[in-house]
Amino acid sequence: MTLQNRQYRLAARPVGLAKHSDWKFTTEAVADPADGQVLVKVLQLSLDPAMRGWMNEGRSYIQPVGIGEVMRAGGVGKVAASKNPGFAAGDLVAGIFGIQEYCLVADAKQSGLHKIDPRMGTPAQWLNALGMPGMTAYFGLLEVGQAKAGDTVVVSGAAGAVGQTVGQVARIKGCRTVGIAGGKAKCDFVVNELKYDACIDYKGGNLRDGLKEHCPKGVDVYFDNVGGEILDTVLTRINRGARIVICGAISQYNNTTPVKGPSNYMMLLVARARMQGMVVFDYADRYGVAIKDIAQWTKEGKFISREDIVPGIENFPATMNKLFSGENFGKLVLKVAEA
Amino acid sequence: MTLQNRQYRLAARPVGLAKHSDWKFTTEAVADPADGQVLVKVLQLSLDPAMRGWMNEGRSYIQPVGIGEVMRAGGVGKVAASKNPGFAAGDLVAGIFGIQEYCLVADAKQSGLHKIDPRMGTPAQWLNALGMPGMTAYFGLLEVGQAKAGDTVVVSGAAGAVGQTVGQVARIKGCRTVGIAGGKAKCDFVVNELKYDACIDYKGGNLRDGLKEHCPKGVDVYFDNVGGEILDTVLTRINRGARIVICGAISQYNNTTPVKGPSNYMMLLVARARMQGMVVFDYADRYGVAIKDIAQWTKEGKFISREDIVPGIENFPATMNKLFSGENFGKLVLKVAEA
Repeated sequence: MTLQNRQYRLAARPVGLAKHSDWKFTTEAVADPADGQVLVKVLQLSLDPAMRGWMNEGRSYIQPVGIGEVMRAGGVGKVAASKNPGFAAGDLVAGIFGIQEYCLVADAKQSGLHKIDPRMGTPAQWLNALGMPGMTAYFGLLEVGQAKAGDTVVVSGAAGAVGQTVGQVARIKGCRTVGIAGGKAKCDFVVNELKYDACIDYKGGNLRDGLKEHCPKGVDVYFDNVGGEILDTVLTRINRGARIVICGAISQYNNTTPVKGPSNYMMLLVARARMQGMVVFDYADRYGVAIKDIAQWTKEGKFISREDIVPGIENFPATMNKLFSGENFGKLVLKVAEA
Repeated sequence: MTLQNRQYRLAARPVGLAKHSDWKFTTEAVADPADGQVLVKVLQLSLDPAMRGWMNEGRSYIQPVGIGEVMRAGGVGKVAASKNPGFAAGDLVAGIFGIQEYCLVADAKQSGLHKIDPRMGTPAQWLNALGMPGMTAYFGLLEVGQAKAGDTVVVSGAAGAVGQTVGQVARIKGCRTVGIAGGKAKCDFVVNELKYDACIDYKGGNLRDGLKEHCPKGVDVYFDNVGGEILDTVLTRINRGARIVICGAISQYNNTTPVKGPSNYMMLLVARARMQGMVVFDYADRYGVAIKDIAQWTKEGKFISREDIVPGIENFPATMNKLFSGENFGKLVLKVAEA
């Protein structure tokens, strides 16, 4: 019996939010691995805001996904067959697999293929705190943001995949942690489960007053996942020497009008502060350190993670758009197959 | 005979460009210095874009000038009388004197009062390359911008007070230097006299194409004096790890609409770059190092400075506005009295 592989391919470059017609759902036969190749059965896929950027043309930190190509996505899977001495059938692995049921990995290094330890976390956790969002949070906060004990750290998208780890790592490092999230349920989660010191509901109140109340000593590190008005408002509250980590700008990704730049960027001068961008891949050779820390904190009960797992590869287009409506709660994962 | 002191005081907070009615021209008798005080006869005053910011209310790196107060300005003067053991009549000094003919310095430290060496430069040079603009350029480029040999350094307002020193220091440090200025005369000055490698006329051509042509290896350091569209365009050409020094935003200072934030700020992420603000006063304890370097380079014929000296305190209001029309050429200085 020939295995069939269902795949989502990019059919057109979206204008604004991706529509169903921007995708093509294809089926093809699964090929056997040639020498050096590894065939991975995909279990779970990571859905991230950054994917929206990969669908656009133009200069970025990574090549855009080509029209007709399988949509790029990170995932966790199980090796189904291998002609690469580094991997054996049954190995649990993570890597860039794409939105599909099987991935024939030709170049293990280029696909970031690596074995993962199921005792350290579930597949979904390996896509969350132990995966890209967790690594982004850890290195963004500690390396780019240079957060240190006593700092006030503000995090937008605090209930999201990256935000949930940023606040917890900051708390563990001795910072005052203030989240920004949309809606009471998310804010409650941020305070009650992630144990942020406070969370401001940007939809329900006045962000400026919330920052005044909850950051009485100003803001030393702002970890920005959203951009737009929220970035502008936080800029008015930064301390001298503050560090603003530019991790994302989810409020702007589906814009059909020009991106709104931060009007208050001259606060960088007033505060002698800096705004710095980051891309998680730059820290790949040190992921091990972060994974060890996070797994240890989890074991000690200091750190939790939350995933929003949606089953069914056929649900990919609608599920991905949840990222931008603010609907999803925790790291969004698409479950393609049972382990 | 009682000496009379003519002064420009802030009468109202300007909306947009300052109007004559925003100033009050007053005359008062000069008082004798009390114990610890120094009476300075003002010779030349520095007119800087930053002064426009000091006229606004709101949080900044320095207290706003109060309504009714003498307008703040740095200057060079001669001690007329002193009851401070650190200064004697006849000393040439620099400090924050204000737009007036005499300044009674009550607190030498707070006014930044210090003796200057006339053998190292003229009064106007002490307000330019050896003064605030020079110090801003030197520390902004080398400390904040971390410019090093082989870097491509782009400087906006290249013919201006700060820009003229930035490019020359960068050249001396082994960088490729590309200026941005308005009009052929300024661009010619930047290339022929300041010895930048190239200068792009933002009024006369296509800045984007100019950057492509003159920065074939991209931009490592961008020293921004202007903000607005120019900042946005340079952002599209930055290299990985680039440093953007936010020194000013002259295009935005007289805005009556909100400041235009940099729409392309997400290039900071793509390029893992940083944008950092600076205030020259933070480097005050190291001015001596910079002054020594610049004086030495001048002596060796590697460094020049250009000032635009306008005589007559009564010309202050119109002269200051020249900063924002792009009319002035070189560091703008108001000459109040002969030495």
